[in-house]
Amino acid sequence: MIVTVTANLALDVTYRLDRLAPNRVHRARSVNQRAGGKGVNVARVLRWLGHETRVVGLAGGATGELIRADLDAAGLRHDLVEIEGESRRTVALVPDHGQATLINEPGPKVSHREWERLGELVRRVSARATAVVFAGSLPPGVADDGYAQLVAAVAAREVLTVLDTSGAALREGAVAGPDIVKPNADELAELISAADPAEGAAALRDLGAGSVVVSLGSEGLLAVTGAGSWRAEPSGVISGNPTGAGDAVVAALASGLAAGSPWADRLRAAVAVSAAAVAAPVAGDIDEQHYHREHGAASVCTVEEQEESHGTGSKR
Amino acid sequence: MIVTVTANLALDVTYRLDRLAPNRVHRARSVNQRAGGKGVNVARVLRWLGHETRVVGLAGGATGELIRADLDAAGLRHDLVEIEGESRRTVALVPDHGQATLINEPGPKVSHREWERLGELVRRVSARATAVVFAGSLPPGVADDGYAQLVAAVAAREVLTVLDTSGAALREGAVAGPDIVKPNADELAELISAADPAEGAAALRDLGAGSVVVSLGSEGLLAVTGAGSWRAEPSGVISGNPTGAGDAVVAALASGLAAGSPWADRLRAAVAVSAAAVAAPVAGDIDEQHYHREHGAASVCTVEEQEESHGTGSKR
Repeated sequence: MIVTVTANLALDVTYRLDRLAPNRVHRARSVNQRAGGKGVNVARVLRWLGHETRVVGLAGGATGELIRADLDAAGLRHDLVEIEGESRRTVALVPDHGQATLINEPGPKVSHREWERLGELVRRVSARATAVVFAGSLPPGVADDGYAQLVAAVAAREVLTVLDTSGAALREGAVAGPDIVKPNADELAELISAADPAEGAAALRDLGAGSVVVSLGSEGLLAVTGAGSWRAEPSGVISGNPTGAGDAVVAALASGLAAGSPWADRLRAAVAVSAAAVAAPVAGDIDEQHYHREHGAASVCTVEEQEESHGTGSKR
Repeated sequence: MIVTVTANLALDVTYRLDRLAPNRVHRARSVNQRAGGKGVNVARVLRWLGHETRVVGLAGGATGELIRADLDAAGLRHDLVEIEGESRRTVALVPDHGQATLINEPGPKVSHREWERLGELVRRVSARATAVVFAGSLPPGVADDGYAQLVAAVAAREVLTVLDTSGAALREGAVAGPDIVKPNADELAELISAADPAEGAAALRDLGAGSVVVSLGSEGLLAVTGAGSWRAEPSGVISGNPTGAGDAVVAALASGLAAGSPWADRLRAAVAVSAAAVAAPVAGDIDEQHYHREHGAASVCTVEEQEESHGTGSKR
């Protein structure tokens, strides 16, 4: 079983509009809502990849009830700590043409006691897990080392860990030694003040992270690990909805970590499932055909091989 | 007691943003939510005017629970029929500068049985009422004569009625003979295909409405009644938030109807409370000072007096 921990669970509300006209009144053509937050999206992809999963997190109020009901309806098993505050929503305004406009609520303030209860739950559930994924932002009220505490507790039981967050929570979390962290290039540059993703990844490993996989948007992934560095690239530019592509990468990495598969295989799967997420018409879904095609077509090589084939020397 | 009936109750969610940037991700600076729908707003103003009120309507699901909880928190007494569907939300995106952008959910489909239960509730509650206000759109699943049925049932008990809706629900509703209907000029022009509000108002009276008060935006009100026609104008252009100005007019008209006060007094109060609603910083609130100032300064005269003072002859 792979557990995903989402400290700041959400109800993702999507409104379809003809078009978004600022300062005007719109009648939504349709309303869809489902449980969200990075860990939930990761769990959906993990299940698609064939894993048993468990969604763990904090949820409260009427919105928390809607989150639980949607997880039940989706058949995603969950263990959620009931909190005093009202769970957050995200609002996506999706016009017929063009990109979505997103409004994210900050989320409820979490008390010390509630966070402790999440810690107890994570320890209990992880006893039956191969790997635990920590994903998304920390809610208001939780110290920057919130994920670090949880990662340390899980790692102490020799359960594998993956961390996907940003900012101070990522920096502090890396210190606890998660097996894999997955920042995107922008988050990494902001955190480390290094424009070169390889430098940023090395800095996160120096802090304590086992391996670092940097997502480079449409250019694929860079993995910096104790066993070497790899570049994985999709076969071409995928048009579609990039929402959830990063969560798909995390799911594939957790899957490969749990299986102990070679890095090249993990990265090939990550690029393929990410591309297949972008290609699927509905955010969060996976286009199966695209997955298989991309799994064959993606390019994965060591950084040394890539630099030789591009005829460039190492920058370091 | 004045009862307000809102068939399509809502939870009004307001997000404060620095600015609205289409196609981008926003972090909401604050989130506020409260019970909404025209009848709820009318009840708030009626209470401010000193009336005992009762909010009647349909509510369901987790959003329905939030509506009930907010009505409780606001001290607004309510009798709501629990429905199977999930109550609708409206989303307002309010930037620091400029106007709000609104997204309205259509609302849940209401079954025949649920609508019947609302009818039974309206008949029961109206036995103790001086007047009943019907406000807002009809929810999906309800026939265009939905308000007409309710108006007829209440009028049969010799309780006064006010109807504020639009489109087919207004046309059908007018036939049932409500004491007052309050369309705005745009709604009326759309319904009657007459650019002149006086013509449109006369047409609604021909259908069955006792009196028609047309809101003309910043230009005030036109009342066409069995006892004559009036024009009421605010003392100047009010800058502020026009959300709720129309609901304030309905509340003042219902208040005057219940008290049996002269039309000129009703219209003066309606212009004053409407202006005071626009002037209040928070949508739905009333600026008390502005109310008293405008109550003294607004101009109310018969249409004949106005035409004489403007030196124009009657158009008819």
